[in-house]
Formats: sequence, C-alpha cells, structure tokens
Amino acid sequence: MQIAIVLFDRFTALDAVGPYEMLCRLPGAETVFVAQQPGPVRNDHGDLRLVADRRLEEVPAPDIVVVPGGPGQSAQMENETLLGWLRSAHATSTWTTSVCTGSLLLAAAGLLKGRRATSHWLALDSLAAFGAEPTRERVVSDGKFITAAGVSAGIDMGLTLVGRVAGDEHAQAVQLGAEYDPQPPYDAGSPHKAPAEIVDKLRARSRFILQ
Amino acid sequence: MQIAIVLFDRFTALDAVGPYEMLCRLPGAETVFVAQQPGPVRNDHGDLRLVADRRLEEVPAPDIVVVPGGPGQSAQMENETLLGWLRSAHATSTWTTSVCTGSLLLAAAGLLKGRRATSHWLALDSLAAFGAEPTRERVVSDGKFITAAGVSAGIDMGLTLVGRVAGDEHAQAVQLGAEYDPQPPYDAGSPHKAPAEIVDKLRARSRFILQ
Repeated sequence: MQIAIVLFDRFTALDAVGPYEMLCRLPGAETVFVAQQPGPVRNDHGDLRLVADRRLEEVPAPDIVVVPGGPGQSAQMENETLLGWLRSAHATSTWTTSVCTGSLLLAAAGLLKGRRATSHWLALDSLAAFGAEPTRERVVSDGKFITAAGVSAGIDMGLTLVGRVAGDEHAQAVQLGAEYDPQPPYDAGSPHKAPAEIVDKLRARSRFILQ
Repeated sequence: MQIAIVLFDRFTALDAVGPYEMLCRLPGAETVFVAQQPGPVRNDHGDLRLVADRRLEEVPAPDIVVVPGGPGQSAQMENETLLGWLRSAHATSTWTTSVCTGSLLLAAAGLLKGRRATSHWLALDSLAAFGAEPTRERVVSDGKFITAAGVSAGIDMGLTLVGRVAGDEHAQAVQLGAEYDPQPPYDAGSPHKAPAEIVDKLRARSRFILQ
C-alpha cells in the first residue's frame, strides 16, 4: 500500500507528520514524501526541512494521497503541475485525503465539487467558492475523500483512516503505540471553545499564527 | 529564545515535530534542529528524513532543549558526544525537555537523578535504573525539566511550555491556530484505556509499533 504525502514550500510540518505517524503503521505501508522538486522542503516557519524523496511524476498512482496545508498552499492554487497530479492520482487512489488548507488544493483541482469537506477554521468558508460543501467537523468523509480540520486534526484523520483500512483493533494498537491520549492544558482548540477575544485576534491577524 | 531539538538516527518523527509545532510559535523563537552530524536524519520507519541544520557543538547553550525519543534512542545511551552535550546544554538551559524515550537519554546523561519524570508507557520503568522517579502522567514537571509520555504527548508538553514561557493567552492562541481540539476516533491511547489484549500484545511485541 503506497501512501504519498505531498510537500510544497511553506507547508505546515504537523499537517504532514501527524497523519504520517499514524498511516506509516498500516500493514505493508510504503510511505513516500513527494514534491515537484525532490530534496529538502522548507516549512512555513522556515526553520524545519523535511526531505521529499521523489518527484510527483515518479509516484503516479498511490493508494492513499495526503495533502497537508499551510500558508504555502496559496502559492500552489494555480500550479497546474501539482493540480494535474492531484487529479490523476485521485483517479486511481483508494483514499484521497487532506489536512488543514490542503483541502483548498483538492478543491482548486476541481475534485471537491458537491462534496462535503473541511479545512482550517479560518479557511473553511473558502471551500464554497470551489463548489464544495464546507462542513464544520474535525474529520469529514465523503466517498473516498477524507478531509481534516486545522493542523493537529490530521492525527485524528490518520487514525480514522487506519481503522477503515486495517480495522479497529489495529488502529487501537497504533493509538496505544503513539500513546495518543490527548490532554491539552487548555480548552481553546476551536473557535467555539476559545475566548472570543483570542478568536477575534486570530481572525484579524490570521497570518500571525498560520505563517 | 533559542530552541534546540535533538535528532538522531531512528528517532520518532512526531516526537520532534509535535512540540516543534507549538514551540516555534513562541515570541522570538529561533528553532534549530541539531545532530551529531548535520544533514538529513532518518526516522524509525526509515521513510522520513528531517534535516539537522547544525552540529551539536554549534548550538552550545540553547534556552530550551527538546529530546525526542524513538527506537534509535537505545543506540545513543552510551554516546558520550550526545550525553556530554546534553549535560552542558542543560547546565545553562532555561528548560530541558523530552518526549517519549527521550527521557532515557536525559537519564543516561545523569540528569534525572532524584527527579520525577515520565516516558513512553512501555519504557517508563526503565527510568528507575538511572535514579529517576518514574511518574505515570502525560506531562511531568520537576524544576526546569518537563518530560512527556509517548510520541503524541509532546504536543501537550509543547503547549504547556508555551504557556509557562509566554502566558496562557498566547498558548491558547497557539492552540487555536493549530486547531488542537483532539477528537480521537478510539479511546485506546493509554494502557489503562485500551483493551487488555491490545496492551498485552504491545507489551509482548513492543518493537512492532515502536519500530
């Protein structure tokens, strides 16, 4: 089972590594980081580099496609090399997935028309412009698409997909292995839970956190 | 504020990237991935490479030290280059932290004697051999040490530390930016919650998940 995780300049690291850490533990998984140009790819903060081992065209038909997000997504929205690869990879994939603003790339490729999908809460409404149905849930399934909300939601998406592919028992073993028993020290992880002034601040200066 | 994240062969990617994604959003943060040899460092599964930008000795006095774990930790337990760096970095650090079996490296460096500390649940008891007090909590603080349980616990540790350094409001903004409102599809993330047969299986074949 080949899993392709797409990298691009200024991606958000946890968007990619969260689902990776779950999905790489699928039985028989071959995970490959792909990019338009192979080599180190720099993240949104500029101080982390993850290596893309292969070019997009070298991995034409993965079983699972994972598209992370991050501030760099906006520069890819008209990149036909990437969008064309997403279309053709999706044509033969078993699962096509995204984390955070990665769903906007699937949408820009024309893949989410009429589909329920989610994204980072600050970007969710943008999905509608591409004909998708923005859905305010943490992990959204529609057909073979699974989209996740912002950044850390990719872990929940990855574990959900492990369960779909390999069964609940295997997924629970992966969860236990990663000791994924989250205990955030605050309860401010969604715009419905965080103090209103913090939500407003992020809305007004959304690039503050996302970049 | 300089944050050094230590990489070594066969580290677990989420151990490093989870806290990174929180800590890099501290005001004035300069995050640097360090290793004995700079360049791409391969993870436990062998299909992910994160780039170490600098040698250990080039970053002698970080404000925050982060030591991830992973199966590769065992090969470092007598590596005096790394252990010596941990001792000298800790001597001037403001915070010395670990995720998963990274705490065993702090312990092997002689730093955790008499200290409360945690680790991956499968490795927790090993801390006692180094004079530490194994503590079954997700994030354990003792003086300037903050140790986290397995893999995903590094996110909770990172966010806890963001709050200590920059205050609750900033930490909540980071949590909201990362949409860290976890909703795992299963409740099997600790040995006290997972089905007993899965716990037993992982105990018996701990390398199955951890490697």
